[in-house]
Amino acid sequence: MTLSRQPLKGMRQLAPGKKRIEDYIIKRLREAGVAYGFEEYETPVLEPLELFLAKSGNELAVDQSYNFTDKGGRQLIMRPELTPSLARMVASSGELIYPVKWMSFPVCYRYERPQRGRVREFMQFNLDILGVDGLEAELEVFLVLRRIVNSFNASPGQYIIRYSSRRLASEILENCGMTEEEMTQAFAVIDKKDKIEPDEWVELVRKTIWDKHNADKIISFASCSDLDAPWLAEVAGDSKAYSEILRFSEMLKDAGISEAQFEASVVRGLDYYTGIVFEVMDTGGKNRRAICGGGRYDNLVSMFGGQRVSGVGFGLGLLTLQLFLETYELIPFGISGKHPADIFLAVYSDEERLFAVNLAEKLRDFGVAVEIDITGKNLSKQVRIADKKSIGYIAVIGPEEVASGRITLKNMTSGTETECEVSEIPLILEDRTLSGEAN
Amino acid sequence: MTLSRQPLKGMRQLAPGKKRIEDYIIKRLREAGVAYGFEEYETPVLEPLELFLAKSGNELAVDQSYNFTDKGGRQLIMRPELTPSLARMVASSGELIYPVKWMSFPVCYRYERPQRGRVREFMQFNLDILGVDGLEAELEVFLVLRRIVNSFNASPGQYIIRYSSRRLASEILENCGMTEEEMTQAFAVIDKKDKIEPDEWVELVRKTIWDKHNADKIISFASCSDLDAPWLAEVAGDSKAYSEILRFSEMLKDAGISEAQFEASVVRGLDYYTGIVFEVMDTGGKNRRAICGGGRYDNLVSMFGGQRVSGVGFGLGLLTLQLFLETYELIPFGISGKHPADIFLAVYSDEERLFAVNLAEKLRDFGVAVEIDITGKNLSKQVRIADKKSIGYIAVIGPEEVASGRITLKNMTSGTETECEVSEIPLILEDRTLSGEAN
Repeated sequence: MTLSRQPLKGMRQLAPGKKRIEDYIIKRLREAGVAYGFEEYETPVLEPLELFLAKSGNELAVDQSYNFTDKGGRQLIMRPELTPSLARMVASSGELIYPVKWMSFPVCYRYERPQRGRVREFMQFNLDILGVDGLEAELEVFLVLRRIVNSFNASPGQYIIRYSSRRLASEILENCGMTEEEMTQAFAVIDKKDKIEPDEWVELVRKTIWDKHNADKIISFASCSDLDAPWLAEVAGDSKAYSEILRFSEMLKDAGISEAQFEASVVRGLDYYTGIVFEVMDTGGKNRRAICGGGRYDNLVSMFGGQRVSGVGFGLGLLTLQLFLETYELIPFGISGKHPADIFLAVYSDEERLFAVNLAEKLRDFGVAVEIDITGKNLSKQVRIADKKSIGYIAVIGPEEVASGRITLKNMTSGTETECEVSEIPLILEDRTLSGEAN
Repeated sequence: MTLSRQPLKGMRQLAPGKKRIEDYIIKRLREAGVAYGFEEYETPVLEPLELFLAKSGNELAVDQSYNFTDKGGRQLIMRPELTPSLARMVASSGELIYPVKWMSFPVCYRYERPQRGRVREFMQFNLDILGVDGLEAELEVFLVLRRIVNSFNASPGQYIIRYSSRRLASEILENCGMTEEEMTQAFAVIDKKDKIEPDEWVELVRKTIWDKHNADKIISFASCSDLDAPWLAEVAGDSKAYSEILRFSEMLKDAGISEAQFEASVVRGLDYYTGIVFEVMDTGGKNRRAICGGGRYDNLVSMFGGQRVSGVGFGLGLLTLQLFLETYELIPFGISGKHPADIFLAVYSDEERLFAVNLAEKLRDFGVAVEIDITGKNLSKQVRIADKKSIGYIAVIGPEEVASGRITLKNMTSGTETECEVSEIPLILEDRTLSGEAN
């Protein structure tokens, strides 16, 4: 029997070149979180189904997820998102120091048809602030987002942080006289607005919301991107949510976050959001899926029978971020081909092998990454291997090197050769790192 | 409804303190791999069941794993180990440069009863060399293992690298006249030898292997830890496997790997090993589960219809390694409590907030990790938060600081205060890092 050579469709398989690109992205994300004092945590991939039924809603937990019954009869789910597990963890940790500022890099699973930017197994970056009721939490999250995008050298015009208020939307729809069921439908269609063509969307609203009057209101509201629009001010009236988002808009202006823009159509799909919601979008139109989505949730933890703890957080898909970076050529050239070894030691013959192995070990003790020949092939073949692996330096260990203890380092990029003592090698290589290609 | 506050039994949930310990371990492992030029890759958690049925054997793939049928009717498994996925990836990568030296940190799943050192969801470190037939590959893997354990400051007497040869064992059992079925049973009982008490084990052998003559031979063979034992030399005769392991033993001696020790009882559980097999054990007896196990496999890739590519590799359980490190107190004190923020900015009142936020952003641009108050609580409460989070430095931003632009940095460990310009802060904090607590 011959087995398939391909992983299952939509699964995450990364050869070293692709893994280095992901690692580059992870490193930048982690640095951004650390810059604000966020701590890293992990939760299980495999969870009780009921946790996600309670938190994420039926569509995500049942229809769009991998769920099954295990040998012990437990109903399990491979997490489609992280937040419910975070909420449980917070509820069970007695001695937390608030504000809790946590981040994580979960791999999540969704049973959906794979397409551009959407796969079945994907890594996310999650970042949450828990225990802060004020808008200072939202502001900090926006600062983190700006720092993330800037750390990849994206220009302000290439992305936008769109935000709105879930509570404002609820209040306005309620003021328009909609029932709770109608509002749920309304949120679902509003969420679709920027994922399809404008005409298509208007048609969808009219098809979904039978009451023509309500459909019109949804269309007006969702098309609004001006917080001071007279229409909006009138419908919102003296609503708390409206004054909150006005204040937030001022805070963003004061902090100079000009990339942020109010868009009433931002509602985010997840059921648990209660306040400000937001997403990061490519402004160029090539990537229509949000790079990141998040918001404030106020009731998650209390479902575990504990105290009410409010939170603000987001999930950022590493794949959508990567597509964005690729669109604007923001992934540094050469990362995927960068081999970890600093130097390749070629071995002239088996006579010199033990000397070479000991030399390699000594260099490693000094922090040099050394790949040494283990094939026993002839010298020219060894050199070809080092060359194909793009290792920066090569040294041949032959009878002369063993006798003299002096090594000739060849820089594989420039072709220059340097004869030196073994003990000099670490510094020579370090100079190279300092003078350039560190990442 | 109140949801459970606990994750499923045996699942991997790590609050930041525990995550920092895991990160410390991951960092050391990764550094050891990089020192030898290993490149990192990833494969999916979710795989076709048939891949593991073909490679890992029925017991592991069916009885001890999480497997289920998805909505599309596919029979899936949550990987119980990594090697079959690696083999597939290698088989499907056309342009690989051999020797392939790859490493990975997979999270794996087994449906087993949780107990000390054994859980249902666990992270492994996998490292493999592919495309080298000679023992130089095994030697390099042993060098990596020694470097790993030494990098945690373990003493040579605290661990041992036990090795044997699967082929030698097969040949000897075959020479004793056993059938293939008897040999499979024999391997299974030999594998149990160091997991239970000696008497218990002898009893198990006699119960499993009905032929008393064969049972005796298995007991003698599995108890042998001297490669030059006359008994062994006689039964092995001029076997290729015997001369190979003798040569390997010499190579280990030459390279000074005194932690390595031949033990005929080492056979490793996985079916696909064909040559030298090995494991790292705690010599102290408190941790009976191998920290790491591996060996040579020669036929894995060819099952995908490709060329024969031989490999040597191991899987190392991060949890068993951590238990070992804890036993010998080798995890540096204080790691779990080390908060990522370098400095906490307390905000005197809302008047100074914008100044403080901008100051924090400036410091972050210089690489300083800054946690700033976002609670709006009074100063003494803010200081208490910073103190509980064990953040090293604190500065209060009040009217004076805003007016003068000068900041007073308080070292929370020593209590000393330093008044300085904002632009001096990065260097002051860097000096602290240079003078000590870097990790």
